[in-house]
Order: sequence, then structure tokens, then C-alpha cells
Amino acid sequence: MTTLLHLDASVRGDRSLSRRLSREFTEAWLAARPGTRVLRRDLATEAPPFVDQAWIAASFTDPEARTPDMREALAASDALIDELEAADLIVLGTPMFNYGMPARLKAWVDQVIRIGRTFSFDLTRGDSPLEPILFGKTLVLLTSTGEFGFAPSGPRATINHLDTHIEAVRGYLGVGQAFHIGVEYQEFGDQRHAASLEAAIAAVPRLAAQLARPQQSA
Amino acid sequence: MTTLLHLDASVRGDRSLSRRLSREFTEAWLAARPGTRVLRRDLATEAPPFVDQAWIAASFTDPEARTPDMREALAASDALIDELEAADLIVLGTPMFNYGMPARLKAWVDQVIRIGRTFSFDLTRGDSPLEPILFGKTLVLLTSTGEFGFAPSGPRATINHLDTHIEAVRGYLGVGQAFHIGVEYQEFGDQRHAASLEAAIAAVPRLAAQLARPQQSA
Repeated sequence: MTTLLHLDASVRGDRSLSRRLSREFTEAWLAARPGTRVLRRDLATEAPPFVDQAWIAASFTDPEARTPDMREALAASDALIDELEAADLIVLGTPMFNYGMPARLKAWVDQVIRIGRTFSFDLTRGDSPLEPILFGKTLVLLTSTGEFGFAPSGPRATINHLDTHIEAVRGYLGVGQAFHIGVEYQEFGDQRHAASLEAAIAAVPRLAAQLARPQQSA
Repeated sequence: MTTLLHLDASVRGDRSLSRRLSREFTEAWLAARPGTRVLRRDLATEAPPFVDQAWIAASFTDPEARTPDMREALAASDALIDELEAADLIVLGTPMFNYGMPARLKAWVDQVIRIGRTFSFDLTRGDSPLEPILFGKTLVLLTSTGEFGFAPSGPRATINHLDTHIEAVRGYLGVGQAFHIGVEYQEFGDQRHAASLEAAIAAVPRLAAQLARPQQSA
């Protein structure tokens, strides 16, 4: 059975385009794979706490040696990592805020990337001492941006710190294959935005159907 | 009189290297310019709230038309922007978390970049409708990273979303000139880290002295 983790970071509720895309992806997926278990994490209604000094001290303490206070400091992180660990498919809807992740989403990333749970650290590995612990997940990233041209060849490529940043950390989320569909031009509200939205709305169920199709083994 | 805004994002207290750099910069600056007014904002002890739906609705409402609830939704943002607006020099100490800003620092960015206060929006400007409102500030960015090689030619350049992200938004913070000093190799704790720390500790007072020197006008 597939487990789908449906994450949203937008605070715009029903007006959010990234939520619309993530909802439509999840619905299309469930139509094809009705037995899927869905885990829901809405970062707008339940913002993750910020990492603090107690969190860092607890995460670097051997699990067996943690005090009750230390376990409490990691409780939110444990819950978020349990969901991530269980997921085969992560459906993440998020707007771009100031050319990157909204702070709520970064707070989620900072809670789930944790030594001993999502990565290991070993200096005998040389200059790359970190290695992921989780593997094999698929990420479907669904974004909305006010401006446009954030793709690699676009005029705003060098200031894009949203999907590129998620790409930089995805290994530590256990993500093997990743897909990205985005709506652009939101703040222009013009024909280009309408076309971008229409293209995304068409692409979402196609991607869901493609990923839900039974895989051929070699 | 110069106003210096001293910001820190690390939660590691006295063990933080980015805090050590920002403290040493500020002390060296004050030795050269004792009359400086210092504004202190510690994001570890006072984390900014996350932007929420009420914040967005209030920020897009004409200031004259805002209800008391709307003004309340923007109160934290107003306080943070007031400090930024007053500052000539921003001294920002931050670690890298998961290849980018800690969520606390991103929460600060999301609170201070706001329509009508730090940027204006006008579709008659064409494809670049946003323009900064604040100008002429100097940013001194002081960072600490566990890994290394995040400079443009380095092996981790493409996954760096810390100083590059701050660079992408600095215009909206009113920053004209920016300087960056960073300590690398922290998680290795080896001779390379010691050398990197030593170089940063030497560079910080030099930069403070250079910036504190009276400017020659043309």
C-alpha cells in the first residue's frame, strides 16, 4: 500500500493556487489508487516550532541517554519525521516567499533533517561526512510564484531559492525522484498567468496518472 | 550619527561562531565610532512570528483603512521594519541550516519585506513591478557553516542558499553595499576549521575599521 504525505505551506486558504494543485494531485492519485493511505500535514494551521538550543543538544545526544526534557524537545520533530519516514510519495504545495521557502516550510525542513533519523555523520567518509538514511521516496513539488522566469534558463534563475533549495536538501528527505509543476505570473494577473495556471492544472492529473501506473520491473 | 542594527540568528549562545563574529564586528565598530546607536535584535530569544493570512490581508489593505485587528496583525512586522529603516549598518550573524537560512531568519525576512514599507508594486513598470523603498544601507553578513566550498567556484556552490539568498533579497532590505565573512568546516573540527576561524577573526576588525573610516567624497 502506498502512503502519501500531503503537505501545504500556503496561508491563503481557498485562494491558494499551490493548495489547489496539491489537492488536485492528491485527488487524481486517489482516483487511480483508492487504497492509498493519506497523511495530512497543513503547515498553515500547525506551524512547526523553530529549532532551538535544547533541540540541538537533544539531537546530538545518544537516544538511550536522552532525558525526558530532551525527548520533549524532539517530540515535534519525531512526529514530523515519522510521517516522512512512512511516506512513499510526498505531495508538497508551497508558494514562493521572497524568492525562497516560506519560513513555515523552512521550519519543517529544519525539524525533519536530523542526525540519526534522516542522516548519519561519519568523519571517516572524508570531505562528505553526511549520508542520507531514508531512500526511495518520490516528491511532487507544486509551487506558485508571483513573478516568473525562475527556471534554469530564465531571467530570474539566479535568484530562485525555492525549488533549487528543496532540490539541494531532497536527498536528506529520502527523495529519489522529484517532479515540479509551478504556476507563475500570479502578481500580474494577466493572460500569461491564466495560461500558466491552465498548463499546471492540466499537467497535475497527467503526472498523477503517470506515477500511479504500475511500474514495469526490468 | 550612525545606527547599527545587530541581528543574530544562531541558537547556540556562547558556543556560536556567527555570534562571535557579529559581536567582534560590533565591538570593533564601536571602538572606532563610539557615538553609534546600536539596535539589538536577537532572533534566538525573540523569534518573529510566521506570516499568516491575516498578515497578508492587512499588508495589502490601505494603511488608512486598516482595522485594529489588521494593525495588530502587522505590529511585529512594523517593529522589525522600524529598526531596519533606522539602520545605516546591518550586522547579521547567522549559521547555515540545511544549506540556507535558519527558519528564524527567514521569518524575519518574511516579516520585513512588505508592500508599502520596503517595496512598492506597480504594474506600469512592466515585467519588474517591484521596486525597493529603502536605500543606502550597508550589510555585514557573518556566517558559520558546518561544511565548506560554498563560494561561487567551490564544490558546494550550487547548493548554497544562504548568502546567495540574502543577496537575492538585499535590495528589498535597502542594502546598497554588502560584505560577507564566513567560517567554514565547523563540523570537521580540524586544522582547516581552525584556519578558517582564524582568518575570519582577523578579517572582522579589519572590515570594521575600513567601513568606519570617514568616507572621501568625490
